[in-house]
Parts: sequence; structure tokens; C-alpha cells
Amino acid sequence: MTNTLFYSPGACSLGIHIILEEIGKPYELSLVNLKGGAQHQPEYMAVNPKSKVPALKREDGTLLTEYPAIATWLAKSNPEAGLLPTDLEGETRAAEAMAYFTGTIHPYGFTRQYRPGNFTPNEADIPKVVETGKAAADKYFTLVDGQWLGGDWVLPSGYSVADTALFFVEYWGGKRSGLTLPSKLAAHMERMMARPAVRRMMEQEGLSA
Amino acid sequence: MTNTLFYSPGACSLGIHIILEEIGKPYELSLVNLKGGAQHQPEYMAVNPKSKVPALKREDGTLLTEYPAIATWLAKSNPEAGLLPTDLEGETRAAEAMAYFTGTIHPYGFTRQYRPGNFTPNEADIPKVVETGKAAADKYFTLVDGQWLGGDWVLPSGYSVADTALFFVEYWGGKRSGLTLPSKLAAHMERMMARPAVRRMMEQEGLSA
Ligand SMILES: N[C@@H](CCC(=O)N[C@@H](CS)C(=O)NCC(=O)O)C(=O)O
Ligand SMILES: N[C@@H](CCC(=O)N[C@@H](CS)C(=O)NCC(=O)O)C(=O)O
Repeated sequence: MTNTLFYSPGACSLGIHIILEEIGKPYELSLVNLKGGAQHQPEYMAVNPKSKVPALKREDGTLLTEYPAIATWLAKSNPEAGLLPTDLEGETRAAEAMAYFTGTIHPYGFTRQYRPGNFTPNEADIPKVVETGKAAADKYFTLVDGQWLGGDWVLPSGYSVADTALFFVEYWGGKRSGLTLPSKLAAHMERMMARPAVRRMMEQEGLSA
Repeated sequence: MTNTLFYSPGACSLGIHIILEEIGKPYELSLVNLKGGAQHQPEYMAVNPKSKVPALKREDGTLLTEYPAIATWLAKSNPEAGLLPTDLEGETRAAEAMAYFTGTIHPYGFTRQYRPGNFTPNEADIPKVVETGKAAADKYFTLVDGQWLGGDWVLPSGYSVADTALFFVEYWGGKRSGLTLPSKLAAHMERMMARPAVRRMMEQEGLSA
């Protein structure tokens, strides 16, 4: 058996998809059509009662959820791929970055734009909520850009799983929401899109560059 | 120099405060009065531009943010306290649990109730948003209760930093929002409140049991 990633094209699961491509071992993809509501159907709820992607069914049959946990587990169980620093400080900064990208920028920047119904009970307020989401995403990106440590990647030590989490919000911001990314993030997104693993993910998910 | 925790009484920083008490080494507390808006004042923004607590100023002068990163760093840099499993699977499950408690239950269950203005631009919809937050918290608690592995603590291997993150949402649910916690979580909250480290935190933050 291999690992199986439950994903939806263009959803935040795309970052875990990149990690699997970087590792380069065989894995399977299982489509969960979020737009069609498949996450709330009994079939997927039996797999993941949280009704979310990404979720990773591992070789031993157990399910792992939550982006930072899946990313860190994949990196640590495939150390030869070099996707996470091995010192405590580097690992800690990767965790801090992923928590911010997945736990703040994703919900308050982008879920606000893409599922505004979670941020107002009132149909009429939806355009306002979408604008608030865009402004929040802009503010968060500016903060990340301002704290950028100066290298090519999120961590000064080099490419890591933290870059995949930054990439999914950059991609949403730059390609889907039409935001202008601050210069360091725009350059980071380009650098990501030049990676063969990212290109393979985009091709497999049908995403345009 | 010692570690300094930036906190606000009763905020999610209470979980990091518990960890510092469990470790038992000297540390300092620095109050950020969230109700008074201190997080947006230049003084605190110079410390943490994210304008959030918890934040930990470490002995070496660097700042660490994000609950899961702070909790994991404290546990790993104080291994004698035994606050995190040392095997990859245990560490991974702790990360998964903390990501869910801090990244889903906190914002969608409780920020919705306590800062409903983040979830509607419309004053008139606030009561509805608060109800949605309560219903969401109930649903998440039921899910955690249903997946409970059967021991006294979140991880079958024993007490860990993951328990501190579950505790802050349980405390908010049970003591502040008047929710009825499912039985395993109610028992977990009581077990937490019986710990000397938790009692000391509550006394220092002026929280009632
Ligand atoms: N806390 C989760 C959040 C995952 C998440 O929000 N996934 C979205 C896709 S980007 C989802 O499955 N949404 C489906 C829905 O909300 O119905 C993580 O970081 O893995
Ligand atoms: N992603 C952060 C979130 C921290 C957070 O939301 N803290 C709240 C207190 S519970 C806060 O500082 N709120 C102040 C504000 O939003 O103005 C973490 O997990 O540490």
C-alpha cells in the first residue's frame, strides 16, 4: 500500500500534493469534489469526519489530518528529501510559519473571500465580506514580506515544507483573487512555480500558471 | 534572562502559561490588555507585529509566536518535563490535535462568539453569529469526544502540551459560554483543573473554577 492524499484541485491540499511530488515516492490521489459538496457525503465523512481536505491515508491505514501535521510527518518520515531543518530552531520556525499561513492567512484572508457565507449570515453583506478578506490578505502578505529573512525561501536554511504552505496562499492571492503580491512574495511564488514538483502538481490538478 | 510570556488573562495564552508552570523554571509574565486594545498600540506592535497573544520572548531575545510552535518548542527544549512524546507518531498526533484546537475550534467556535464583529459587518446580525459560534463549538466538541482514544488525556501516551490547547477551548466553552461539554471533555476539563500547574495559572490570571 501507498499513501493516499484526499484533495480537491486548487484547494489548500495542493501544498501537500507538492510535498508528495518533492519526495518522489509512489502515492495515490483521491478526489474530493468540494464544489459538489462531496466533503459532506457519508462516503468521505467515513474517511474524515472533519469534512476537510487535505487528509492523508497512510500506508498503515491510519488517517492524518491538518496541514502542518501532515507536512511535518511527511518531511520527517522521508528525511532524505530534506524538506525540514533537523535542528530544533529550524523546525520551530517552520511550525510557526505554517501555523500562520494555514491558521490565519487561510481562514481570515481567503476563506472570507471564497466562502463569505461563513463570515456573514446575510446575503447582502457578501460583497463587503469579500472586500474585508482581500484587505486582510493584503495586510498579512505585507507583514510576511516585511519580516522576510532575505533568502530565497521562508527559512534562511533553505527550501522546506513551510514554502508549500506559503505557496498555496500566494497562489490564491496572485492568481485567483487578483491581488498584487508584495515583491518578495511575488518572487517566491515564481521561484515555487519553477520547481518541477510544483509544475507536476499544477498539471495534475489542472491549474494554470 | 528568562523567557517572557506576553499574555492576556483568560485568552488562549492561558495554555502556554500552564506549560510554563508545568516546566517549573523561572519565567516572566507581561500583560497585554486585549480588552483595552493594547495589542494594537505601538509598544506591543514593536514586540509582535501580529498584534496577538501568546508570544514568547525567549532567553536569547528572539520572539516566538503561534500556539503550536511555542508549545512544541517549550516541550522540546525542556525534555525533562515530559510534555511531548518523543516518537514521531506521538509528536505528529500532538501537532494534529493542536492544529485543530487552535486553528479550527478557536476561530470558528469561539472567536465567532467573542469577536462576532469579525464574522459580520452588520451590528444587527451579531446575535445570530454568536449562536452560530456556539453551535459550531458544540459540533467540534462532539467530534473530539467521539474520536477520544479512551485515556485520561488527548494522547494515549499521557499528558502533553496538546491537553493545554484542548483545555483553553473547554474552559471557554464550559465556563464562559455556558455550553454543556460532552462527557469525556467535561471529565478532561476537571482533570486539568485538578493539576497544580493549572491552579497556579488560574490564580495568577484571576480565573474562577
Ligand atoms: N485546519 C485544516 C483546514 C483545511 C481546510 O480548510 N480545507 C478546505 C479546503 S482549502 C476544505 O476542505 N474546505 C471544505 C469545506 O469547508 O467544506 C488544515 O489546515 O488542514
Ligand atoms: N494563530 C494564533 C492566534 C492567537 C489569537 O488569536 N490570540 C487572541 C487571544 S485568544 C488575540 O490575541 N486576539 C487579539 C485580537 O485579535 O485583537 C495562535 O494560535 O497563537
